[in-house]
Order: sequence, then structure tokens, then C-alpha cells
Amino acid sequence: MYLRDEVEMLRQVPIFSAIETPKLKLLAFTSERKQFRSGASLCRQGDRGDAAFVILAGSAEVLVHSADGDAKVADVYPNSIVGEIAILCDTSRTATVRAATNMEVLRIGKEQFVRLIDDNPYIAIGVMRVLAGRLIHTTGELTTLRAEHLAT
Amino acid sequence: MYLRDEVEMLRQVPIFSAIETPKLKLLAFTSERKQFRSGASLCRQGDRGDAAFVILAGSAEVLVHSADGDAKVADVYPNSIVGEIAILCDTSRTATVRAATNMEVLRIGKEQFVRLIDDNPYIAIGVMRVLAGRLIHTTGELTTLRAEHLAT
Repeated sequence: MYLRDEVEMLRQVPIFSAIETPKLKLLAFTSERKQFRSGASLCRQGDRGDAAFVILAGSAEVLVHSADGDAKVADVYPNSIVGEIAILCDTSRTATVRAATNMEVLRIGKEQFVRLIDDNPYIAIGVMRVLAGRLIHTTGELTTLRAEHLAT
Repeated sequence: MYLRDEVEMLRQVPIFSAIETPKLKLLAFTSERKQFRSGASLCRQGDRGDAAFVILAGSAEVLVHSADGDAKVADVYPNSIVGEIAILCDTSRTATVRAATNMEVLRIGKEQFVRLIDDNPYIAIGVMRVLAGRLIHTTGELTTLRAEHLAT
């Protein structure tokens, strides 16, 4: 793929949308592109987390161990980021991310992620929005389920 | 309170701990300090969110409407940040924050918050860590409750 096309692809990702073109070119040039086949794991719950993934094509399921085996807690689609929690919090992976289709992803290592945030405050705001949006969703589900639980 | 003491107080707040002293002095000088009496609301679910709060003294409860009235979803203590979700996501307040004791807080307006992030990438990383930590906690509770729900 030409660098120009890669830059256009990255610009579709909301957390990168406000970055200037030269910086986006640098990101396209220096970042690692990976393919995953349907069914493969991008990361596994409990493993050490050393990278986040930006999904360029395909989709994945986010799975968390529970008493009844792996429970799906979310789906992730193109142009979204996943796996950033472990690199932010220095914890092991809090979930397994499994490819639901063949996928193409951008792998962003921990140090590169921190450098990106340092150089581009807009990315920081974007990642915070993603986290805050997920928190609104999860808290909403928790509140609903608790109310049902009390009613049974 | 002397400016020097205020700066020391702000330095206890994890998201501000890595900021250089001159910037912390500026923050202490320009930010709004507010007191809340026990039982008063820092913000109410559904209201427009135009500020985040850093808790300097006292504690608060985070309450969310549910079928059974307000359900407590978290407690917040000194040196933590609360209310940042509405200013990040341009949504109305997702929860009510009610003072459990008399409180002293730093009110950070939306524009000031974005400027702080622009000028201090460490704050961005800190806020992301807070959000990620809450997400780990909420997802854990949700997974446990779902498993219990399925078992009943």
C-alpha cells in the first residue's frame, strides 16, 4: 500500500483525525502492521500487555473469563482502539481480544503510545473519550443488571 | 492559604504529581476553589456538564438513577478527580456526585481542562489511567454479577 493511502486510512481513525499530515506519515512509516486470521487472539487475558491495537479492517470480540467460561463484553470494529488499558495501567491484559473475521491492525507499543500522547494532545483527548464512552456503557449495563438482580 | 501550601496540596493529586512547580503555581492561582457542605451535590445526573472536580478534602458518593431510586456506584476520596466524563464526551452528567462530608474541591472548567491536557501530557496519561482503572473495576463487577444472574 502507498504511504499516501496509509495516511488516508489512519485519518479515518477518530483518535488520529486531528493529527497533522506529516505526523500521520511518520506514524504510518514507523508503526507495525499486523494481520490476524479469524479466530486468532490479538491478546489474551492475563498476559503481559505491551501494545495497543488500532483496527484498520475486520472486527474482534472482547472476552472476559467468568464462572461460565469466556463471556463476551464487547465487539470492536474498524477505526477503533483496543488493548490500551494494560499499557496505561501497567496491569496484565484484562480481557482476551479474538478476531471475529480476518483482520488488519496497527500495533502501537507502549513507549510509542506514550510518545504519541506527548506529541499530540488531541490523541489524548480522543483516547479519554473512548474510555469515558466505554465507562458510560458499562456503568449503564451494571446499573440495569443490579436493578434486575434486586427485583428477582 | 499560602500559594506555596496550595501547590503542595495539588502535588498530592496523582494526576498533577509530575507537573513542574511553575505550572502548578499557575493552576493554583487560576483555578476555582469551592466548598460543599455534607449532603450538597457537586453535580446532578442529567445536568449539563461544564466542569470536572479535583477533591482536596472530604469525600463524596457517586449515585446513578435506577429502578429502585439512586444506586451508589462509587465513593470518591481526596486527591481524586470526578466529573470529567461529561466534559470529555459532551454529554449531560452521567451521575450525581453528593458530598458525604464537608468538602473542599478544585473546580476545573471544560476549556481549562483541555488547556491543561494540551500543556501537560502527563495529566492526560494520569486521567486515562483513572478512567482505565474505573473501567477494570466496573467490567469486573459486571462480569461477576452476570455470572450470578445466570446461576439464579
